[in-house]
Amino acid sequence: MNQPIDVMSRRIAILGSTGSIGRQALEWLSGESGMSICALGAGNSAELLARQVREHRPQAVGLASEQAAEALREQLPDGVELFSGPGAMCQLIRHTRPDVVLQAVVGAAGLQSTLTAVECGSTLALANKESLVCAGAVVMPAARRAGVAVLPVDSEHAGIFQCLQGAEKKDVRRVIITSSGGALRNLADEQAEKATVEEALNHPTWTMGKKITIDSATLMNKALEIIEAHWLFDLPAERIEVVLHPQSVIHAMVEFRDGSMLAHLASPDMKGPIAYALSYPDRPGRETTAPMDLPALGRLEFQPLTGRFGRAVNLGYEAIRRGGPAGAVLNAANEAAVEAFLQGKIRFGEILTLIETVFRQAEGRESFPDTASQPNEESDTLSTLLSADAWARKKIKQLLTK
Amino acid sequence: MNQPIDVMSRRIAILGSTGSIGRQALEWLSGESGMSICALGAGNSAELLARQVREHRPQAVGLASEQAAEALREQLPDGVELFSGPGAMCQLIRHTRPDVVLQAVVGAAGLQSTLTAVECGSTLALANKESLVCAGAVVMPAARRAGVAVLPVDSEHAGIFQCLQGAEKKDVRRVIITSSGGALRNLADEQAEKATVEEALNHPTWTMGKKITIDSATLMNKALEIIEAHWLFDLPAERIEVVLHPQSVIHAMVEFRDGSMLAHLASPDMKGPIAYALSYPDRPGRETTAPMDLPALGRLEFQPLTGRFGRAVNLGYEAIRRGGPAGAVLNAANEAAVEAFLQGKIRFGEILTLIETVFRQAEGRESFPDTASQPNEESDTLSTLLSADAWARKKIKQLLTK
Repeated sequence: MNQPIDVMSRRIAILGSTGSIGRQALEWLSGESGMSICALGAGNSAELLARQVREHRPQAVGLASEQAAEALREQLPDGVELFSGPGAMCQLIRHTRPDVVLQAVVGAAGLQSTLTAVECGSTLALANKESLVCAGAVVMPAARRAGVAVLPVDSEHAGIFQCLQGAEKKDVRRVIITSSGGALRNLADEQAEKATVEEALNHPTWTMGKKITIDSATLMNKALEIIEAHWLFDLPAERIEVVLHPQSVIHAMVEFRDGSMLAHLASPDMKGPIAYALSYPDRPGRETTAPMDLPALGRLEFQPLTGRFGRAVNLGYEAIRRGGPAGAVLNAANEAAVEAFLQGKIRFGEILTLIETVFRQAEGRESFPDTASQPNEESDTLSTLLSADAWARKKIKQLLTK
Repeated sequence: MNQPIDVMSRRIAILGSTGSIGRQALEWLSGESGMSICALGAGNSAELLARQVREHRPQAVGLASEQAAEALREQLPDGVELFSGPGAMCQLIRHTRPDVVLQAVVGAAGLQSTLTAVECGSTLALANKESLVCAGAVVMPAARRAGVAVLPVDSEHAGIFQCLQGAEKKDVRRVIITSSGGALRNLADEQAEKATVEEALNHPTWTMGKKITIDSATLMNKALEIIEAHWLFDLPAERIEVVLHPQSVIHAMVEFRDGSMLAHLASPDMKGPIAYALSYPDRPGRETTAPMDLPALGRLEFQPLTGRFGRAVNLGYEAIRRGGPAGAVLNAANEAAVEAFLQGKIRFGEILTLIETVFRQAEGRESFPDTASQPNEESDTLSTLLSADAWARKKIKQLLTK
């Protein structure tokens, strides 16, 4: 017997539901009528996923780890479909056909499911910036062809997106994204060199996952965000700027051709961008972030990027200018270097140096050793990007064993 | 023989063309194709108006002063119509039927021509906030009935208007307008009491006309702007806030019901709001205000309103809550008190005290001695407001001669 269909209900899939973004999304969705959770996917957190299933009653779940899936299987209520293995996220989308996919998988690992969401016509609420950094050249044209909206779930890009709501593209002169400076912002370059994992994870204004918190400390997060903005808003490198703003109150600004600007302000809380993307084109009907009291805040500060911060951000600009596989190389090198840092294999200062080395080696390269066969134009591009990604990870590994 | 009609040209009338806003509008319009100036009106500056006529070739001109009109008559090129006397601005609009009227007359003196513009179906670019403060209850319904847009030419309200472009009214929780604090912001209340005209006219961030510069120093400007925002955006007093912001970079903010905000930033230059209103719904196609360099600015500061500033702004809230003729009384008392200050008749500190006294005397009054006859509902309202205005001016005069 069929379930009665609630025509008002927006069916949401959350990929990466046990991570920081996924958990905050579920927390917000708990209080939200008019939205239902049709699918939850995670990497290997079987226990937490089981609890989420009991609370949110999705139609299907997925775990990338086969082993974790086995642990989950016994705990699933009747009728909940389980997918497992490397293709679990894609199967989950194909099986449930969500209205909106909140893509919150971390890293380039999210790319295939991003493409599957687009292919299935789901609106893409994209917290996984690496999909665009690595393969914006594939994701964005595919989304346009499918008529699928790509909505940013990144505070800066969500801010730009909100500033652009009443605007025309021809009127936009530049966008400015802000950076808190991350956990090590008060350390001089020489001191930051030797920062511990614990220090680098101690973000001053945002509570986020580990990988993105390290990206914030290196400012590689901004390099990636520049590339993300390039793809989301179709802007060249010279029209995307980054400014240090320690208070993390203004997340982004848009400057128009008449010289005036709009800025987006919000308490540093990812529930804001999550709720905005899931509710779009409506604005969330209730408070998602604490309102701000500007006189109590007192001041908003802005500083230019210098030293290691400037080096990191320049990699983002350079990747846009190079085009082709440069974003994939940069992103993969960063992922591999951050992983090495989190595993205690390298010092903090080496993250950026390693990335720079690999990025320099990739300059001028159009193809990479293990490029797969090329049945058509799109998968040609995609396979080039994937092999660039693999190449960069291998290069980091080689540098680490030297 | 008819002139060939340029269908692309937007015909603009400027009332108050020799004042600060009028001159800046003409400067901006000089470089603008697609807009033509059909009418220029002023108070009594015959010489400057004659120069403006030679440069901008309007179809008609008007001067409120008969004497100044005589001086202008001989200098007018053939075919330029001249209107003079108290009804000159209204005649100018009726004669030229502009697409847009930039209403930049100072004070409640602009009310009749504001209503004439609405009646003639001209889009109203409103720099004359006193029209709304005195008679929003007449102007706004008349504009709605005529299907006429009322576009703010006040930096704060233009800022709110820009923040609202992609928004729905139901999503707006509050609006915040900023104040530089005016010329005397660094003086304690006791010192400000005795400020000279010269000191009070020395505005730190904005170059404006005399009346509005004094209003900025007393913060009565914000009291009037609260009432203006109430009418323009249909908001109750408790959803309009004022915050001190010495840099005058953020002009206004809108807080949405999800807790996030948009802010409008621009260099303090009235050409921005003027050009925006004249170009609306398009955004000006070229730079109207110098773009901002936030790292160079360094910081934006915010402070609560205290002392005399709080007293002034409370008058605005109270006028909204009282409704009826309260705005007209407040505005007229302010105009008369500012005039007395500029003429050296009272000290700076007495401006606010005088206004408070008259505003207190008006409390609870529904009608005022010399209310005119009442042929219909609208003119009933209007005549009540006009007699409240006259009553308040008389009261100030009486207090001055005591």
